[in-house]
Amino acid sequence: MNILVINCGSSSLKYQLLDMTGESVVATGVIERIGEELGSITQKSNPDKYPDAKSVEQLPIPNHEAAMRLMVDKLVGEDWGVIDSLRDIDAVGHRVVQGGEDFSAPALVDKGVIRSIQANIPLAPLHNPANLTGIEIALELFHNTPNVAVFDTEFHQTIPQKAFMYPVPMELYTEFKVRKYGFHGTSHKYVTRTAAAHLGKPVDTVNLITVHLGNGCSMAAVEQGKCVDTTMGLTPLAGLMMGTRCGDVDPAIHAFVAKHRQMSLADVDAMLNKQSGLFGVCGMNDMRDIHAARAKGDDAAQLAFEMFAYRVKSTIGAYLAVLGGADAVVFTAGIGENDEDVRALACQDLEGLGIVLDPEKNGAREPGVRTISGRDSRVAVLIVPTDEELEIAQATQAIVNG
Amino acid sequence: MNILVINCGSSSLKYQLLDMTGESVVATGVIERIGEELGSITQKSNPDKYPDAKSVEQLPIPNHEAAMRLMVDKLVGEDWGVIDSLRDIDAVGHRVVQGGEDFSAPALVDKGVIRSIQANIPLAPLHNPANLTGIEIALELFHNTPNVAVFDTEFHQTIPQKAFMYPVPMELYTEFKVRKYGFHGTSHKYVTRTAAAHLGKPVDTVNLITVHLGNGCSMAAVEQGKCVDTTMGLTPLAGLMMGTRCGDVDPAIHAFVAKHRQMSLADVDAMLNKQSGLFGVCGMNDMRDIHAARAKGDDAAQLAFEMFAYRVKSTIGAYLAVLGGADAVVFTAGIGENDEDVRALACQDLEGLGIVLDPEKNGAREPGVRTISGRDSRVAVLIVPTDEELEIAQATQAIVNG
Repeated sequence: MNILVINCGSSSLKYQLLDMTGESVVATGVIERIGEELGSITQKSNPDKYPDAKSVEQLPIPNHEAAMRLMVDKLVGEDWGVIDSLRDIDAVGHRVVQGGEDFSAPALVDKGVIRSIQANIPLAPLHNPANLTGIEIALELFHNTPNVAVFDTEFHQTIPQKAFMYPVPMELYTEFKVRKYGFHGTSHKYVTRTAAAHLGKPVDTVNLITVHLGNGCSMAAVEQGKCVDTTMGLTPLAGLMMGTRCGDVDPAIHAFVAKHRQMSLADVDAMLNKQSGLFGVCGMNDMRDIHAARAKGDDAAQLAFEMFAYRVKSTIGAYLAVLGGADAVVFTAGIGENDEDVRALACQDLEGLGIVLDPEKNGAREPGVRTISGRDSRVAVLIVPTDEELEIAQATQAIVNG
Repeated sequence: MNILVINCGSSSLKYQLLDMTGESVVATGVIERIGEELGSITQKSNPDKYPDAKSVEQLPIPNHEAAMRLMVDKLVGEDWGVIDSLRDIDAVGHRVVQGGEDFSAPALVDKGVIRSIQANIPLAPLHNPANLTGIEIALELFHNTPNVAVFDTEFHQTIPQKAFMYPVPMELYTEFKVRKYGFHGTSHKYVTRTAAAHLGKPVDTVNLITVHLGNGCSMAAVEQGKCVDTTMGLTPLAGLMMGTRCGDVDPAIHAFVAKHRQMSLADVDAMLNKQSGLFGVCGMNDMRDIHAARAKGDDAAQLAFEMFAYRVKSTIGAYLAVLGGADAVVFTAGIGENDEDVRALACQDLEGLGIVLDPEKNGAREPGVRTISGRDSRVAVLIVPTDEELEIAQATQAIVNG
């Protein structure tokens, strides 16, 4: 079974075609700057075989429909094609950011599902419309093929009310659905299942703290395989410090900054989303650049690094309390998988809580799922490379197979 | 030595006269509704001897100077007086809310100190001016008596930069001093010293998690007797859920609510300060009322209670990670000292982290400092009644005695 996974953004389209027989990637691509004067499509075909080969084309891509047709042409084309025709795609899985309280599992797309995704647009005004556009074009283009929506929020729908409600006036929840939703759910779910398998335990018996550190960062407390808390909230601005997003701050900062810098609330909001986080502290939002600057004695880079790891560390503690203990702490995503310094600092001096890294294992550059805690660590520490496309493809396959 | 402790608010004046020989309270009083049509003064004299006796008078009190003179008249008066004249007051200690980065210890008031308190007014626009008014009147009224300023923020000045900086643009710190300051410092400091004494350890050897739960709520992580983190921030709005304050929420809530409820940022800010917290969730901000409502099956009250305790519990975990382990968790202030249900829920299922309450000790209504953890608890759990006036008086005495 071939499954096409689509992640449709406001001006981009990411796609991946997977052969589910061996769960291998047949092709992966990204279309960027849709609607701009000059767009681009980049595709890798059979990347496992040819990891360095890619096709890059620049051309005007007026809208998402053109983008989707371009993707299809590429997938069936002479030079870089991997399938003979559209009929070789057995199902399409769509990433949808915000499922609100309507979706706690993937859903086969029908009119009701589309209406629910539309109804949740106020909660994700930038993302859900783009995701919907992708779904609507796919329904036309692949009209006999099942389309499945997989939500970034669904894994977090098991969070209990005491953790998902905000201490704000109740009508903000009852009238405007203001609550914690959480994001990166597909990643947290994938690494939960993968970590449980690595630990040799059924997923519904493991307590995990999953730590997704990429451009966006979030953590989840997973009890018996179910999410019971997460750091992102109503939006992906909450929780940990990120590349350019602030994460949790004193909620009085908005009024203070608006007053002293004569900024509007919209300006403050944009500043907290786009000019804060690592970038706000040291002018860099890529942790690799930050490490390079630290090595040269850049104090601001050092501070940004320490602040970043400190927030991960204290949240590990918070979630240990929430769970009453954990089988493992699981690092994933770009920084989580590749940055030994962040992992080391986030786990430093946690022996008292049963967490001891093995410095050698932590420093080893190896692929795949692996344990990096020491033998005397009561809580295992794992690296689990995330694979959101595979998670979406598996979820899609499960729905299609009924 | 008699020390007068003054806490001057915008329309109120609280005072306490202490005889430092036995650290006993000679008189305690509160003047309210200063500047309104009808104010009031309530005083208890020798409250240890006569706990139920108090004088209450209603009269117009046009301004803070009138209030201070009224206090003096009461303290030396015929009926309720406890001293013969002003000369029997050997020193005056003033509570000041915001010392910024200028004060990490109490200070003998002089012109430089006054200038520094003035300079910190932007960080505490409601409190510091009132505190200063109290100081200025006292300097006139008690002109040969030493006046000492004790700051709510000073105990937190040992917090390291990684914990006090916010992940926002650096110039907000360098230009506008936006950072975590923390409050309730006098209380956290007092219970830290008292808990160390109760544990029989020098204060500079104890790691504590101090939990101040009153109308305002905050926690502190104390390492070797020094504060290394706290939940309140730039303002007292941050951190835990409180009576009417929200504590930490997704910082995108402001823009979301402003848009959907057509509110200004000032309105949102007021809502988060005055209509949120326990009150926002269940319409009550007094935990005793909430327990009464829970007993009658009020779901919103139950939710508010669970949310409140959940945030305390997860912060206990966070600070265990920050400290790498603690000697004790110390509950203080109105709810912390008196509410066994909140303590029980906040400590529930923390055996894995070494925290086990003794239900009987937790439920016992006893006065004074006491241990409420079980014998098998690696981390002690204590109740330490806070006494901010005594802390201010002791600090004042130490300064005066050089």
